[in-house]
Amino acid sequence: MIACAESCTGGMVAAALTELPGSSAIFDRGFVTYTNAAKIDLLGVSAATLDVHGAVSEQVALEMARGALARSGAQIAVSITGIAGPGGSEHKPEGRVCFGLATPSGITTQTQEFGALGRDKVRRAARDFALGLIFEAIA
Amino acid sequence: MIACAESCTGGMVAAALTELPGSSAIFDRGFVTYTNAAKIDLLGVSAATLDVHGAVSEQVALEMARGALARSGAQIAVSITGIAGPGGSEHKPEGRVCFGLATPSGITTQTQEFGALGRDKVRRAARDFALGLIFEAIA
Repeated sequence: MIACAESCTGGMVAAALTELPGSSAIFDRGFVTYTNAAKIDLLGVSAATLDVHGAVSEQVALEMARGALARSGAQIAVSITGIAGPGGSEHKPEGRVCFGLATPSGITTQTQEFGALGRDKVRRAARDFALGLIFEAIA
Repeated sequence: MIACAESCTGGMVAAALTELPGSSAIFDRGFVTYTNAAKIDLLGVSAATLDVHGAVSEQVALEMARGALARSGAQIAVSITGIAGPGGSEHKPEGRVCFGLATPSGITTQTQEFGALGRDKVRRAARDFALGLIFEAIA
């Protein structure tokens, strides 16, 4: 079973995972944590981590993935937090997206710079990258 | 601020609400509660309601919307639970989707029969109907 914790993709990963019939056999739940308050409440991300590193950071991605794994019935949880744009924020460039992948054996994080592709393309690129992480983890 | 609780649309409403820049000013969080366990854990839907009425029912839509409002910082919460198909289930026809809309002044529910359009079209129709409910509530 898979869970996901999404910020900039806003539900697109969950929507993709539930596109096919029978997806209830593999998809448990999704957390669309757009605000910092949602990340704290629903996933247990620490306010200090948000303050120190900003919402778009591997540290926050790690805590999002860890929270999604702990607060679901899933064995794989993916997290996505990034700057969809337009424009950068938090002194970070448009197109920067941090990902986390949590399984019972540990959590990994990484950052991708998709560049200033525009909001829609950054979101789609982030969605597809997250789906790739899930498929690699399953394979 | 808006929250949403989605089953058959699987995050599509949240994804639509976050398509535009600045959506963080209006969208708080989304709950993609695909399994019954997720509806119970994340939204406080009662197991008895699920047993008696089934996941696709106005009673469950009501409890999903109520839970999303209570467990968010939003003033409007919309819920969606339906049979996207292909085929019916729970002795209910493909295309039946129940919606809930919760605001501080109360909760309303309704059922739409979109018909056997196929999974993708049912999901899109349900997404668009939910967006309409939100816009009406805001307007």
